[in-house]
Amino acid sequence: MSITTSAPIATIASLSAHEGQTVTLRGWLYNLRASGKLLFPIFRDGTGTIQGIVPKAAVPEAVFETLKNLTLESSLTVTGKVRADSRAPSGFELDVEDVQVIQKVPVETPFPIQLKEAGVDFLMEHRHLWVRTPRQSAILRVRATIMRAAAEYFDTNGFIRTDPPILTPNACEGTSELFEMDYFDDDKAYLTQSGQLYIEATALALGKVYSFGPTFRAEKSKTRRHLTEFWMIEPEVAFLELDGLLNLAEGFITHIVTTVLAHHRADLKVIGKDVEKLEAVITPGGFPRVSYDEAHAMLETAFAEGKIEAPHTYGHDFGSPDETYISSQFDKPVMIHRYPAAFKAFYMQPDPLDPTKALCVDVLAPEGYGEIIGGSQRIHDYNLLKSRIEQHDLPLAAFQWYLDLRKYGSVPHSGFGMGIERAVAWICGLDHVRETIPFARTLNRIYP
Amino acid sequence: MSITTSAPIATIASLSAHEGQTVTLRGWLYNLRASGKLLFPIFRDGTGTIQGIVPKAAVPEAVFETLKNLTLESSLTVTGKVRADSRAPSGFELDVEDVQVIQKVPVETPFPIQLKEAGVDFLMEHRHLWVRTPRQSAILRVRATIMRAAAEYFDTNGFIRTDPPILTPNACEGTSELFEMDYFDDDKAYLTQSGQLYIEATALALGKVYSFGPTFRAEKSKTRRHLTEFWMIEPEVAFLELDGLLNLAEGFITHIVTTVLAHHRADLKVIGKDVEKLEAVITPGGFPRVSYDEAHAMLETAFAEGKIEAPHTYGHDFGSPDETYISSQFDKPVMIHRYPAAFKAFYMQPDPLDPTKALCVDVLAPEGYGEIIGGSQRIHDYNLLKSRIEQHDLPLAAFQWYLDLRKYGSVPHSGFGMGIERAVAWICGLDHVRETIPFARTLNRIYP
Repeated sequence: MSITTSAPIATIASLSAHEGQTVTLRGWLYNLRASGKLLFPIFRDGTGTIQGIVPKAAVPEAVFETLKNLTLESSLTVTGKVRADSRAPSGFELDVEDVQVIQKVPVETPFPIQLKEAGVDFLMEHRHLWVRTPRQSAILRVRATIMRAAAEYFDTNGFIRTDPPILTPNACEGTSELFEMDYFDDDKAYLTQSGQLYIEATALALGKVYSFGPTFRAEKSKTRRHLTEFWMIEPEVAFLELDGLLNLAEGFITHIVTTVLAHHRADLKVIGKDVEKLEAVITPGGFPRVSYDEAHAMLETAFAEGKIEAPHTYGHDFGSPDETYISSQFDKPVMIHRYPAAFKAFYMQPDPLDPTKALCVDVLAPEGYGEIIGGSQRIHDYNLLKSRIEQHDLPLAAFQWYLDLRKYGSVPHSGFGMGIERAVAWICGLDHVRETIPFARTLNRIYP
Repeated sequence: MSITTSAPIATIASLSAHEGQTVTLRGWLYNLRASGKLLFPIFRDGTGTIQGIVPKAAVPEAVFETLKNLTLESSLTVTGKVRADSRAPSGFELDVEDVQVIQKVPVETPFPIQLKEAGVDFLMEHRHLWVRTPRQSAILRVRATIMRAAAEYFDTNGFIRTDPPILTPNACEGTSELFEMDYFDDDKAYLTQSGQLYIEATALALGKVYSFGPTFRAEKSKTRRHLTEFWMIEPEVAFLELDGLLNLAEGFITHIVTTVLAHHRADLKVIGKDVEKLEAVITPGGFPRVSYDEAHAMLETAFAEGKIEAPHTYGHDFGSPDETYISSQFDKPVMIHRYPAAFKAFYMQPDPLDPTKALCVDVLAPEGYGEIIGGSQRIHDYNLLKSRIEQHDLPLAAFQWYLDLRKYGSVPHSGFGMGIERAVAWICGLDHVRETIPFARTLNRIYP
């Protein structure tokens, strides 16, 4: 099994450092085209793909015959000379000198995902193999960078990562969308929907904190935007008020998009994303900030002009067509703030200028991708928070520790949450969130 | 609520940039000592603590009276001049000029965690407040750096983060230690114990990958080392064999310890950790690598010399006293490799030189902290893996997708997992893992 080669081992992503040299790549046969006495295998190694050139006259007969008969996704090492070629997607081609097959996929059982189209159910059933195809691999690489850049923004700005529990004791906001399980003897546990309440506690200990982990929603909806298991990153900051929160969200998204553009132009091309749409996001000038009232007025005008089909009712939340229309008016994410408190979460601080409004923000992605961030300033007054818990018919006992945070050194504080999969869908331009995560969990699927 | 001050707002951790200047800090009253006409309040703001000096003659009477009567953990802003003082733990003291109380903790309901000792149950019941105390805050800051450095090591070495699912469809290794739940209509779901099987799939797609997320174990054991919910970071690398895996583990741990020492000497002092023990870990020379057979021979000698109480039986796993003895012989983590395959996981590649041994490694932390890393080369031959699944009486259907990875371009590959909480316990020198995570989940506790 050991590789016998004297050439240096390289990766496809690093070939620019090896131009003109003979190197050994370790990977898989992604595609093979034959043209008479010339073979054009395409190899992949996880970092990218490269086309090999194999003229029958230039290589030992065994090498030519081996490659000619090799099945797709067979594993191998291939040794060859790296040649710059401006027509090649990676910028290089490989003049193959030798090949050693590690495991040949049997001819009778070919790799099930061929270049031709396959149905989504089939692909999801074979997700463990589907992830190998160039577009899916590119999406996963971009996802990894989005996650890294998201954490990096907080790490380099003085935030302390504090991990809230996944198993939580109480069904704080009703049990209908919670996954419930037995927790030893008598207890029930529920899978977290957000770490917010817990990181409010650590923010009052450490000042600026964030959490980053999976969250869960047992929602019986089957849409392009819903997973039952998804990743959230949530900052929470003591002494931060709404204006500062908007600045934080803007800096955060800008950093993520900037980092993706710096590292993934080739991947975005494979995925088919128009990078100009992302470049527009990070041009100077800041994100538009629109109040709920202003957004409602935009929708009234749009309805009057026949640009949206249904009118928006003042005091109600925005529907998906409303959000799509609003975001289509801007080429950057739009920050809508100060929604009516009536349909927002119980813990949101009222606006002192109009207590029927909450000091909150939803950030809508461009191109109709909907809400990617939701956040707010939190109520810091003990009595107000207690009355809100009661008004919402929430179990006071379950919130006693949360109320404690307002009893012992309460301060104004704010935070938001960003769903990673929605951000990946927007940044990659994907139709469905199931492609944004290695193994999506939906209403009908927990396999593989 | 807005802060009225003309002085720049600073954090305690950044005061070296403000020496001799008047600044405003935002935080809490951590402690207060009075000595006649002089007050010595200690303030905390999440980034550290600083002592203030308040001579009655030097400040307005209202400021003196406010501070004199202030209750612990009341929130405030304090303005004063930063003065270097070599005797101060932070290196600075604050000559207080003004104070504004944000919320005063009522005298009748003082902050429940006072400087005197409290029982562990009481502290865990008030974990949302306990995290504010200096030692717990310091541990959480070190934990955050361990998590950041762990991900950073992989991010900067070409690994792609791929998140495996938390909700898994099958009880792969028996249900006794798995948390089970209903997943909509007819299905059952189980909380993951490791992402390994899934990231083997992404490693064959992307080459070098890692996962980083919570894992779960419904173990009915109540020990200092067990949590029901804990965080794991797991790399998985295509074409990597056991020797390379040992190098990877060594570089990984070295990077984490180096990063902690670079940023947290003050925190480690608060925690009470002897930093010389950590410095010894990163001295040049590499970690000791000891085979199972060599470790057994060490234990035989130790038993003969009366250094351990019970003999070790060849062919059995090491017990906790065995591990403690072995690790006590070295001042670095010790890597024990090639355990008998009989008591190791079904997926471990046999050693070609002695197929009764597995190509695996356990890394034992120094100072008796036990196993922090477990890893192995994985079986890459389809038939061998299939027979192992059958020998272990595991449900073949559940592993069909996992077997597919050996059918379509199988390659040698290896990976390991490190439990974050065990690493935090070792690096911080903690007696119990419950202090290693913001809100520990144990057999008897899921609150708060």
